[in-house]
Amino acid sequence: MPEYAVIGKSLPRVDAVDKVTGAAKYAADINLPGQLWAKFLHSPHGHARIKRMDISKAEAMPGVVVVLCQANLTGGATQETVDTVHGFKVSQSLFAEDVVRYQGEKLAVVAAISAEIAADAVDAIEVEYEPLPAVDSVEQGIRPEAPQIREQAKTVEAIPDTPWSALGQWGNVAQETHFETGDLAAGFAEADEIVENVYRIPRVHQTYLEPHACLVKIQPSGKIDVWTSTQSIFAIRAGISGSLGIPQSRINVIGQTLGGGFGGKFGPLVHPYAVLLAQVTGRPVKIVFSREEEMLDGRPAPGAVIWVKTGVKKDGTVTARQAVGLWDCGNVPGASIGATGRIVGVYNFQNIKYDAYAIHTNKPGTTAYRAPGAPQGSYASESNLNACARAIGMDPVEFRLQNMVENGEQRVIDGKPLSHVAFKETLRAVAKDAGWSERTKGPNEGWGVAIGEWTHGAVPGTAVCSLGDDGTLTVFSGTMDITGTDTGMGQIAAEVVGVPFETVRVIRGDTDSSPYATGSGGSVVLYSMGNATKRAAEALKERIWKVAAEQLECDPSELESFWERGDDGQVTARIRSRQEPDDTLTYAEVARMAMRTTGGPLVGTGTFASQPSHPVIAAQIVKVCVDPDTGVMEAPEIYGSVDCGKAINPAEVTGQMEGGALQGLSWAWMEEMQFQGGRMLNAHLSDYRLPTTLDSPQQSTVLIEAPSAFGPFGVKGIGEPVIVPTPAAVQAAVEDATGVHLTDLPLTPERIYLGLHPNGGNGGG
Amino acid sequence: MPEYAVIGKSLPRVDAVDKVTGAAKYAADINLPGQLWAKFLHSPHGHARIKRMDISKAEAMPGVVVVLCQANLTGGATQETVDTVHGFKVSQSLFAEDVVRYQGEKLAVVAAISAEIAADAVDAIEVEYEPLPAVDSVEQGIRPEAPQIREQAKTVEAIPDTPWSALGQWGNVAQETHFETGDLAAGFAEADEIVENVYRIPRVHQTYLEPHACLVKIQPSGKIDVWTSTQSIFAIRAGISGSLGIPQSRINVIGQTLGGGFGGKFGPLVHPYAVLLAQVTGRPVKIVFSREEEMLDGRPAPGAVIWVKTGVKKDGTVTARQAVGLWDCGNVPGASIGATGRIVGVYNFQNIKYDAYAIHTNKPGTTAYRAPGAPQGSYASESNLNACARAIGMDPVEFRLQNMVENGEQRVIDGKPLSHVAFKETLRAVAKDAGWSERTKGPNEGWGVAIGEWTHGAVPGTAVCSLGDDGTLTVFSGTMDITGTDTGMGQIAAEVVGVPFETVRVIRGDTDSSPYATGSGGSVVLYSMGNATKRAAEALKERIWKVAAEQLECDPSELESFWERGDDGQVTARIRSRQEPDDTLTYAEVARMAMRTTGGPLVGTGTFASQPSHPVIAAQIVKVCVDPDTGVMEAPEIYGSVDCGKAINPAEVTGQMEGGALQGLSWAWMEEMQFQGGRMLNAHLSDYRLPTTLDSPQQSTVLIEAPSAFGPFGVKGIGEPVIVPTPAAVQAAVEDATGVHLTDLPLTPERIYLGLHPNGGNGGG
Repeated sequence: MPEYAVIGKSLPRVDAVDKVTGAAKYAADINLPGQLWAKFLHSPHGHARIKRMDISKAEAMPGVVVVLCQANLTGGATQETVDTVHGFKVSQSLFAEDVVRYQGEKLAVVAAISAEIAADAVDAIEVEYEPLPAVDSVEQGIRPEAPQIREQAKTVEAIPDTPWSALGQWGNVAQETHFETGDLAAGFAEADEIVENVYRIPRVHQTYLEPHACLVKIQPSGKIDVWTSTQSIFAIRAGISGSLGIPQSRINVIGQTLGGGFGGKFGPLVHPYAVLLAQVTGRPVKIVFSREEEMLDGRPAPGAVIWVKTGVKKDGTVTARQAVGLWDCGNVPGASIGATGRIVGVYNFQNIKYDAYAIHTNKPGTTAYRAPGAPQGSYASESNLNACARAIGMDPVEFRLQNMVENGEQRVIDGKPLSHVAFKETLRAVAKDAGWSERTKGPNEGWGVAIGEWTHGAVPGTAVCSLGDDGTLTVFSGTMDITGTDTGMGQIAAEVVGVPFETVRVIRGDTDSSPYATGSGGSVVLYSMGNATKRAAEALKERIWKVAAEQLECDPSELESFWERGDDGQVTARIRSRQEPDDTLTYAEVARMAMRTTGGPLVGTGTFASQPSHPVIAAQIVKVCVDPDTGVMEAPEIYGSVDCGKAINPAEVTGQMEGGALQGLSWAWMEEMQFQGGRMLNAHLSDYRLPTTLDSPQQSTVLIEAPSAFGPFGVKGIGEPVIVPTPAAVQAAVEDATGVHLTDLPLTPERIYLGLHPNGGNGGG
Repeated sequence: MPEYAVIGKSLPRVDAVDKVTGAAKYAADINLPGQLWAKFLHSPHGHARIKRMDISKAEAMPGVVVVLCQANLTGGATQETVDTVHGFKVSQSLFAEDVVRYQGEKLAVVAAISAEIAADAVDAIEVEYEPLPAVDSVEQGIRPEAPQIREQAKTVEAIPDTPWSALGQWGNVAQETHFETGDLAAGFAEADEIVENVYRIPRVHQTYLEPHACLVKIQPSGKIDVWTSTQSIFAIRAGISGSLGIPQSRINVIGQTLGGGFGGKFGPLVHPYAVLLAQVTGRPVKIVFSREEEMLDGRPAPGAVIWVKTGVKKDGTVTARQAVGLWDCGNVPGASIGATGRIVGVYNFQNIKYDAYAIHTNKPGTTAYRAPGAPQGSYASESNLNACARAIGMDPVEFRLQNMVENGEQRVIDGKPLSHVAFKETLRAVAKDAGWSERTKGPNEGWGVAIGEWTHGAVPGTAVCSLGDDGTLTVFSGTMDITGTDTGMGQIAAEVVGVPFETVRVIRGDTDSSPYATGSGGSVVLYSMGNATKRAAEALKERIWKVAAEQLECDPSELESFWERGDDGQVTARIRSRQEPDDTLTYAEVARMAMRTTGGPLVGTGTFASQPSHPVIAAQIVKVCVDPDTGVMEAPEIYGSVDCGKAINPAEVTGQMEGGALQGLSWAWMEEMQFQGGRMLNAHLSDYRLPTTLDSPQQSTVLIEAPSAFGPFGVKGIGEPVIVPTPAAVQAAVEDATGVHLTDLPLTPERIYLGLHPNGGNGGG
């Protein structure tokens, strides 16, 4: 195990001071002289025909500069949302034309000299609707009597022996995927127990604190400047370009400090409108979504209804698993339906079949949310596995360990051999940390365990490292920082170059100045950009070593760096030859020497695109207590472990784990976008519940470091897996506390109470 | 001679549209909410003791936020001006303390909520002065009775046999330099004729159209943002850092469109004050110099008085040359006194002696102005050579050709052998273009010829080239563009990568985002940054070729690029193997392929610092006509030639030549900062005369392309030499027209009239 000087240390985040002092500039903080504000007219109906629309009163209002709707767009501009992390595209019209298909769908946009006037003008647009029956859920959407939401939607034959087989056919199917391996029937025939459940996970919103915001200015040359909150400035550039047919080179996207994203801030949700309005009006245009707009017209995680059936032998062997997933993609295709395949997970189950469908409902489209599809799919899979363990009387940790694949074994899902994984170590570590085998519980208390898997990809990225003539090491890229990756990249660069972290600064470019950089999502940043940074730093170090070796008259291989802290507290990094340790150069001196050589300024560029990563699991154990009289559940303790490959900054990894578990707990406990008759019932944070600090459990985390083959210093991406296991672990803990196998999330007091009192009970009063 | 597809073409400048539409943002155009305006109190006296200063009334004025003067600065901050192109440093206090030494010296600065209030508050500062005798010229400054302007100034023994030898000693000497080679006495003894003159060149201001301007904002983290007009964002960063003891990494300098510089916008003239005020007030602070402030407190070119004595044989052999240069450095050291050595120039003169001194006067310090010192030194040298030619009755072109060094010969000044020079070709070319040997002249007309030499250095710089997934080629650097170098860098990158110029965009970074880049001066940009760009583009091309060769299944050496223009007028650049010309890839396709390889985004970095350049001459022939009754001179024709090595963009080189000749004409004809009793008499453009379009002569230019050894594609830097020969050529033409050898610039009607009428004449009336 090499000793590192900078990585592996819990150093403070580079963005800490700006954030705690309020200096950080978010997109909504940016204003330009003469700017207009734009506000949308959103459909109040989930499904309706537009009989008449009249924008003339709005247009005539003083202070209104322009009103756009599909009818007055020439050429019919289309919006194309490009999610470059997850590889899918969504195309749609900019505005509804004849029919609205979800509450919140954009019908028009007003640009005015103030936000208030724009809002008043929106109210002055007259629309006459003919309401149509709306679909609120996938189970309603597949029924023969449901309205067909999209012409292109298919009707498919029902899969036999499922809760919905009696319908014969399932309608409103936007996408489907199928997988089968082994002999399912033989597997089920072998089983001692068959455990079958339907799990329901509602739509959940990413609820980043900062809503979507952008400000667009078009220069007289036609160059378009876009200040915005985004997880990927390059995705926004591509999205605007694709949507409006503008060459990418004419667009410059300037990413501002990001107030959260969780997958929901890749695509250009508001940006093409701002660009279009800025083009039409010739003035800067600003759009800031409200929380209600985020809820009604954001792109949340898809809900899912997943039926799982598992055959298991008394010795713990799983003989067969089958699943059907119905995923709520809303009015447009696009949902992570493949996550139904989480029933295979990291286990060596052999006989598998799953069928997954994206079903249209009268809701907005969906997009990524931290490990897209995995919290839903793993909730169904892991909850059902806990039920299997219970059915055969086996400890759920032991049951999982017995079935887990290991290094060298092939994955069932793709036949590829595994390497560099540490599934069992990760699960054993959390079990040990939680004292699982010696756990005790009081009345109404319960324990639950689950694991969650995520295999991140690799995404192109570029970093430029340079050593300034004052010894400052600059890391420059166009990657946005949502999780502390700037700090991690800085640590990697400092480690490679051999300087202390305090001499590093991490600088973000815009799409004009920065070569292509990784979008911040998919757990890829420290893997992809970390590799790009490491390569850039290595190229830089080679340059530094060459200049230093010439000056110190030795071979570069003889050089080493060391630091000294002066009486003033300042650290100075120096280079010396091991042969002549008294003859030293500061990094600043070397940088200045380089300025006089033919080589010139000390700069290194690193790029990265694609190298295989490895599946990672996060394992969690949750302790809950339930008040049987009210159904109120609390989760006082969560234990978590994750295989991070190498913790570049352990405090940041721990922060990710704690945040992920809290977010997973929130899915399990509180969050649900509720729809009725095509309308959302809880479009504000007052009734869309989220945990507060007071709801946060005590958390204990264990980091496993099983290095990956290609991650920088062994890094594995862990931003996503840490949200995945929590819902199933909470569900199992509630069952342990109550004896009731609840299936529908969230586990609200009502659901727990009704689970405990299936006939309604008689309350406490 | 290779054929080039992009370089060598007179393509339109990349900044043309923004400039002609007014979209370009200059520093004074930038404003921030809550900003303060700062105005200086400048001394009205050229030399005075400060007896009393009271800022209390100014401080008490409503709208005034703070008043700073040396007395209320704690710790005594000092200003350090760092000119990284020309390598000299100037240190001075931020404000005058006990004594003011030039009119315009800063005594205090006021920050207020408006420029008007700040100006009123400046007027309210009470200062009681005790005027001291002031020195207006170097000839006055060296005299024993002159006041000693700086304690550190030396008194030196007078050089014998000069116009000022009788003084015995010369005082107020700030710097000196001496050179001697061969046997001067023997050389003069051999001569048939000895020609001796004193030439006087006044102070001349760079008169960039845009005065100094900056806006400073300090973030709560302490990070300092500086928007400004500068020739080098890195010099401004270093200057602020050195001046105020702030680490460079805490300063970000954002260069705005530059409204001229000509050498006068390297050092931080106003910036430390804005930073200090922003620190003190916690608010953004803006400073915009007025034209009067530029004239009184800018840093112009030093004036010089140069005595030259030349021995020449009738056959044209120059047997000896001697010079003494007295350079007017103002109240602080720093003037290009070594330019007295221009008496050697590009000739093989053997017996040489020169002595040069910077002499204090009661004027501001000086700095670079296009070929610092060369217009002054060459004016003296070349005018005297013309007089020599006349003395021996030899054609001045032939006389020069006979004495010029050639490739392979050693330079007298440093003993180094010359290579890649084309002095004679350059002079012959302009003589041919002007029809020198067949020239005719009417009454009162005259012709003059002169040459000017400049050897630029090499300055560190970095460029990053990247190929976007839409096929756009981006050139990114932190170099400012004052002369069209962005366009030249873009042409170099396009040529190397093999794409049409219209797919290139040149993007400028700030000091945070860009690695160290060349300051824009010293004729170095296209040489230094051109090399950095070429190397970056070559590294990029290697990456592109590797990916394309893999896809086209051939060796990279078989690849070639070609372009197609579609029916829509769009050009698409493609790559193909010479073996399989039908199988092609667009550059955009290759860029997208690279995003899926381990290599990743297509990026190349290039750096450059130091490689020898070669002396370049510009040669000019000027035709004038003089009205003997009024002394009014006009210059209807200027012919110029320059050895540019390789014209990357011929129109831009021609533009440089025409601009340089016009500026040289302006030195010869109009410009003079006039001082009397320590005060400037003509501190506004109404009485400091500059040529207008109507004064512009017809110009004809010839480009010589004798490639340099290390310039990109053979480039030599030509921004500066083109100003050097004009004053001497004009002087010679006036002598040719009038028969009078005038020595003092500018050649105003008064001087010409008095030259023609040495006893005062009797006018025309």
